[in-house]
Amino acid sequence: MEIRDARPEDWPSIWPFLRQILAAGETYSLPRHPTEEWARAMWMLEPPGRTVVAVDDAGTVLGSAKFGPNHLGPAGHVSTASFMVAPDHARRGVGRALGEHVLDRARTEGYRTMQFNAVVETNDRAVALWRSLGFEVMTTLPEAFDHPTHGYVGLHIMYRRL
Amino acid sequence: MEIRDARPEDWPSIWPFLRQILAAGETYSLPRHPTEEWARAMWMLEPPGRTVVAVDDAGTVLGSAKFGPNHLGPAGHVSTASFMVAPDHARRGVGRALGEHVLDRARTEGYRTMQFNAVVETNDRAVALWRSLGFEVMTTLPEAFDHPTHGYVGLHIMYRRL
Repeated sequence: MEIRDARPEDWPSIWPFLRQILAAGETYSLPRHPTEEWARAMWMLEPPGRTVVAVDDAGTVLGSAKFGPNHLGPAGHVSTASFMVAPDHARRGVGRALGEHVLDRARTEGYRTMQFNAVVETNDRAVALWRSLGFEVMTTLPEAFDHPTHGYVGLHIMYRRL
Repeated sequence: MEIRDARPEDWPSIWPFLRQILAAGETYSLPRHPTEEWARAMWMLEPPGRTVVAVDDAGTVLGSAKFGPNHLGPAGHVSTASFMVAPDHARRGVGRALGEHVLDRARTEGYRTMQFNAVVETNDRAVALWRSLGFEVMTTLPEAFDHPTHGYVGLHIMYRRL
């Protein structure tokens, strides 16, 4: 598996699983059925944001991540990141590899901390992964996410120094 | 004091104090020296966002606030808001009046909660005001704000049900 910067021609490989993940409505505080144009602008960031893809030896896109500033001005050293792993390629360490890559890159680019703004508390695998990568649940905002099967659940805010 | 929806012609009255507050770099996680074009787009929201002004009997703009969704999709019922009071008109209850107005409006528009993402922990008056309006400090993100005199300080995340 290689992780490299996303190129415009990667988007057609990202959009199917990104659309599928948003449509499920279980993990992202984003529209469940966005237009492709909206989704592309949201995911394929312009600098200083960065978007990367994880690809296998055959060049198949397994997942993608983006990171950039979470705040601006006097808090511009706080980064944030988002991750999508193609469901067909889950449980193969793609999320962890993307997470480690993004942490390294964010550190290299001079960010001092990373903040996740909205980790759905029922997303056990993501919460466990981020904890194992050094993130702490700082708080859980009650009733902040309307889960399709669990109803109103909390959103974790997770944070770590870089 | 009256609070009403902001109109395009209010912007020239808002920009001087908004610029002054951002330039001080003590309270906002926003660029300290934005262009007027950037600031106007950031502050004068399109629906579903709302921007309001507090005006006195002579029509002078004393302060302004904006509110709208903090998240989208399954978390679209979480609102957020921002407030700017002209320093020349501080300590006259403008912030409290704007806060009460925004809470009422957000509730009326169907939001279930309100979240402040970045309240600088040294901004004592703001923290006290939001506490008195029912907000709770959910967590404080360490070293998240580079204050011009205090150095790295924390950012409170404040939250309340509506």
